[in-house]
Amino acid sequence: MPVGTQATVKGQTQQNLEELGAQIILANTYHLYLRPGHELIRRMGGLHQFMSWPRPILTDSGGFQVFSLSELRKVSEDGVTFRSHLDGSEHFLSPEKALEIEIALGSDIVMVLDECIETPSQDARAREAAGRTLAWARRSRDYFATHGDPGRQMLFGIVQGGTDRDLRRTSAQALVDMDFPGYAIGGLAVGEPHPVTCEMTEAAASRLPADRPRYLMGVGKPEQILDYVSLGVDMMDCVLPTRSARHGCLFTSHGRLLIRNAQYAEDPRPIDDNCACAVCRRYSRAYLRHLYRSGEFLAVILNTHHNLYFYLDFMRQIRKAIEFGNLESFRSDLQARLG
Amino acid sequence: MPVGTQATVKGQTQQNLEELGAQIILANTYHLYLRPGHELIRRMGGLHQFMSWPRPILTDSGGFQVFSLSELRKVSEDGVTFRSHLDGSEHFLSPEKALEIEIALGSDIVMVLDECIETPSQDARAREAAGRTLAWARRSRDYFATHGDPGRQMLFGIVQGGTDRDLRRTSAQALVDMDFPGYAIGGLAVGEPHPVTCEMTEAAASRLPADRPRYLMGVGKPEQILDYVSLGVDMMDCVLPTRSARHGCLFTSHGRLLIRNAQYAEDPRPIDDNCACAVCRRYSRAYLRHLYRSGEFLAVILNTHHNLYFYLDFMRQIRKAIEFGNLESFRSDLQARLG
Repeated sequence: MPVGTQATVKGQTQQNLEELGAQIILANTYHLYLRPGHELIRRMGGLHQFMSWPRPILTDSGGFQVFSLSELRKVSEDGVTFRSHLDGSEHFLSPEKALEIEIALGSDIVMVLDECIETPSQDARAREAAGRTLAWARRSRDYFATHGDPGRQMLFGIVQGGTDRDLRRTSAQALVDMDFPGYAIGGLAVGEPHPVTCEMTEAAASRLPADRPRYLMGVGKPEQILDYVSLGVDMMDCVLPTRSARHGCLFTSHGRLLIRNAQYAEDPRPIDDNCACAVCRRYSRAYLRHLYRSGEFLAVILNTHHNLYFYLDFMRQIRKAIEFGNLESFRSDLQARLG
Repeated sequence: MPVGTQATVKGQTQQNLEELGAQIILANTYHLYLRPGHELIRRMGGLHQFMSWPRPILTDSGGFQVFSLSELRKVSEDGVTFRSHLDGSEHFLSPEKALEIEIALGSDIVMVLDECIETPSQDARAREAAGRTLAWARRSRDYFATHGDPGRQMLFGIVQGGTDRDLRRTSAQALVDMDFPGYAIGGLAVGEPHPVTCEMTEAAASRLPADRPRYLMGVGKPEQILDYVSLGVDMMDCVLPTRSARHGCLFTSHGRLLIRNAQYAEDPRPIDDNCACAVCRRYSRAYLRHLYRSGEFLAVILNTHHNLYFYLDFMRQIRKAIEFGNLESFRSDLQARLG
């Protein structure tokens, strides 16, 4: 899922995203709640109409942003008090409030509020946060049943549990007992080693029903995505393709390419010979390097377009490999190409 | 002509510009000479191929930028010494050097180097600069005859002369005697009152042959453009549509609209009900205000697209009005609409 934090995927028009074949985008509840406000978006007909994006939208609960961006946060059983990173104003987010916002936005997939913790954290801290996340999930399920639109919107529970394998497993099981239409795994890929991410993902995903979407939040690098898919993950979101693009880091079938490097100054080739995106069909590395060095908007536009195409095409290839039963040979091919 | 200073019209892809119906764009010799360098662009197949823009390109001579952007400039009969605004390095631009750069870029319309002066300037200063500009025009014509490609490229002379009507007239006549395939009028709309701009334009344009393109450099506002066209001007370039867009100032058939204003916060209407551009067909003022306030790239992309559409469509309407012989009624309609 491309990330559209403030109701826009940075540097792309909605038409671009449609042409790229994006089936769903993620929007950030925290940001849209603060600006322009969920009530305004509700009055404008909901987020789909406001941003003119008729395809599905997933909204996070704002939990991650409250814990990573805002100041002076104070967590209680009831919810979390925080100050806006924009103007310092004080706000209170509870599981019910998060859903009220997401329901006003009218997103298709609604995430419950979870408590995110620092990595690494003490065992006791992880247990406390996982327990609170479960309690909040139950309150969210109940609130959504009466205030949501279950015929049109899906509410996903979130597995927390830090880097504790048993905690991940029991949290997943407890959520399954609450019977959500889909499940997310949160609080991973936040600094711990990749094998630990995989271990925790496996612990959670193996307890989640295979016939419901399993969503690993905030990942990842192309080579890691294959690991997660092998563990049963169906959905992912990541700022990597869009944020890297803004820093001139481009994904190719042969690995990453830093467009600012002098070696591309007179390189007439496209970013990736194997890529069929609109950028690779029209522009050279030399031109893209010039745009990047000159700080031009077009650098952001074209780099982002290419990286999103790469990611979306990569996922299409994975789906095809699964369909044809050759995910493992796809993986060895990829490893051989990336060296 | 949309302005593509650094081989890109800020915030638009080349495909966008084609869809907008841009027939020609302007690129800046000064900027491209400094970065990435004209020799690099020559080796990459020229500017058309480098930026993947097959339609016509006009390059200025760099004169205006040397006089407005660079430091420590020193003018002599031979040319002008200046320091780069990028890194302070010292460079020398002569009429011949400007053409060498423009020929390397491979532009379709090549401008001679002219001397730009401050406004207001003393009469003696204006006379000196106009005289030097004429001497440089003659050297440019001679250099281009042996080094240029007159079958494919057109060299335009530039009328200077400050705000001195007689100087403008005699300068125009002297250029006509040199027999250029097109003529520009420079050094206007740089702070003097609009009636003075018109008076100077008239003084110059009336001496220039009507069967050759007459290009008024660096203008203008929509309502002023009609005045210039009435005085015989065929071509104009201006950063106004693109730069205003980046500052949230949008052109409409009813005048200008500042998208940041609170009155648009929940306005579901397009920028301009009478506009058929891709932005007005898809996005509301409310969404565009949100993007602008959030500092999003998409604000630049969409605002620029709309403003360029407005300008290009405005010029299409003027051409049609001329064709049908009703430019004066077109002007009264416009004045009535703008109040």
